[in-house]
Amino acid sequence: MKLATVRTADGLRTARVEDGQYVDLGPGDVGSLLAHDDWRTRAAATGGATLAVEPTDLAPVIPHPGKIVCVGLNYRTHITEMGRDLPEHPTLFAKFTETLIGPYDTLTLPPESPTVDWEAELVVVVGKRVRRADRATAEAAIAGYTVMNDVSMRDWQFRTKEWLQGKTWEASTPLGPCLLTADELAHDAAISCEIDGESLQKSTIADLLFDAADLVSYISTMITLNPGDLIATGTTGGVGHAHKPPRYLQDGQTLVTTVEGIGTLSNPVRRAPESTSA
Amino acid sequence: MKLATVRTADGLRTARVEDGQYVDLGPGDVGSLLAHDDWRTRAAATGGATLAVEPTDLAPVIPHPGKIVCVGLNYRTHITEMGRDLPEHPTLFAKFTETLIGPYDTLTLPPESPTVDWEAELVVVVGKRVRRADRATAEAAIAGYTVMNDVSMRDWQFRTKEWLQGKTWEASTPLGPCLLTADELAHDAAISCEIDGESLQKSTIADLLFDAADLVSYISTMITLNPGDLIATGTTGGVGHAHKPPRYLQDGQTLVTTVEGIGTLSNPVRRAPESTSA
Repeated sequence: MKLATVRTADGLRTARVEDGQYVDLGPGDVGSLLAHDDWRTRAAATGGATLAVEPTDLAPVIPHPGKIVCVGLNYRTHITEMGRDLPEHPTLFAKFTETLIGPYDTLTLPPESPTVDWEAELVVVVGKRVRRADRATAEAAIAGYTVMNDVSMRDWQFRTKEWLQGKTWEASTPLGPCLLTADELAHDAAISCEIDGESLQKSTIADLLFDAADLVSYISTMITLNPGDLIATGTTGGVGHAHKPPRYLQDGQTLVTTVEGIGTLSNPVRRAPESTSA
Repeated sequence: MKLATVRTADGLRTARVEDGQYVDLGPGDVGSLLAHDDWRTRAAATGGATLAVEPTDLAPVIPHPGKIVCVGLNYRTHITEMGRDLPEHPTLFAKFTETLIGPYDTLTLPPESPTVDWEAELVVVVGKRVRRADRATAEAAIAGYTVMNDVSMRDWQFRTKEWLQGKTWEASTPLGPCLLTADELAHDAAISCEIDGESLQKSTIADLLFDAADLVSYISTMITLNPGDLIATGTTGGVGHAHKPPRYLQDGQTLVTTVEGIGTLSNPVRRAPESTSA
């Protein structure tokens, strides 16, 4: 089952995506739906009319997550090819909610950074409140998955040792296009990032060092995870900063981020200020 | 003017603190009060009855901030005495809301970390929505100040290069006891941390390298700051991890954190699980 959050003239509405159609499930967003214990039943219910949805009507699938926890190095092949040892613990940092944009929204390059980079990521969407979850409990607490591009302002990211200030710029992190329920994601789904049709990142989520259940279990050791909380699971090789010479996002490009089975983010990149909102 | 958030049988209420009395300003918390443009007028209004308040009735003064941004090294004397150069940019990291506890709540040491440390901090409370604020705009956007102990699980903090996982444990960050409006904080207010009466940290906020307006301006360059957002401004020398041998919080101690003019946090430290909530 796929669920989406749709912008309408009357505010956000939740929809079930079936054969490219958006079946109206009522007001609210996928995050507020997940707050109900019986969200699966509600989401699978017949639903109302079909909503007319343009791509830019899609909001970040969880527009107001309580937490966005991001993981650093987490693709085995990428870590090994960089000549590093596999880490014992995941590297974690945060993003704030204001950084999210919809799956087809314009990504505006801020005047303060000429070094805006891409990071295609699979995102875990939490569906149940958990603390100190073992692997089985963690697995059962996953509502589903979505896609993020963890767009990073590399100059700000590396101004200090802590990455936060390069990771949480306003309206710069595309999220969506939908939540795919956990039962439907292939264990070896392909993940990729393309710019104007050029393939920059290409891997499979089978290469994740810490998988979704590992991460839910690990993070829930320290803090309660709640429905709608997001865990961005890290990116693979091929980011612009690692190119020689480095490459960064440019005005006029289109950034395309895909996880097989979930869907695609397609974000026009523009240097001049434009209005983008979640 | 001092404002506090009080736990009552009917939920949280906002109060103005006058001569040790809590004048009822109605339901809600100081964060929801700040969401009103005319919060100063509302807060200064006569108010209702005096609330009977036990110390543990005090909630974190902003129980649900949209963001908690924390600053690393930021006390001039401490940076210099560590033999480091003064940094050009502030080091920033995040905490999540679930980490907050009230000013007199029990601080429970989690079984997963034997290395729980203290960091007395002055906290800026944002009072106006700002983005890309210059210094004057930033200054005007500060509602006031409160006190935090940025309690840190050092083993987890240093498992990887990113500090988040040592900084955001559930119910481990005391915040309060009140918001002191910006006009009333002395520029050289003393800040201190004591354990069972032993002085561990002692400095003045005049020693801050990046002051409150600097930080609001800097952070707002990247992301919108909203009313109720918190900026913890960093700590001075004297943390337990820097002792030789290192010292950490122990069961049975009382952790006391003070900023002159704002007030004191006094948190019993207990190893065994206890119920604490915001």
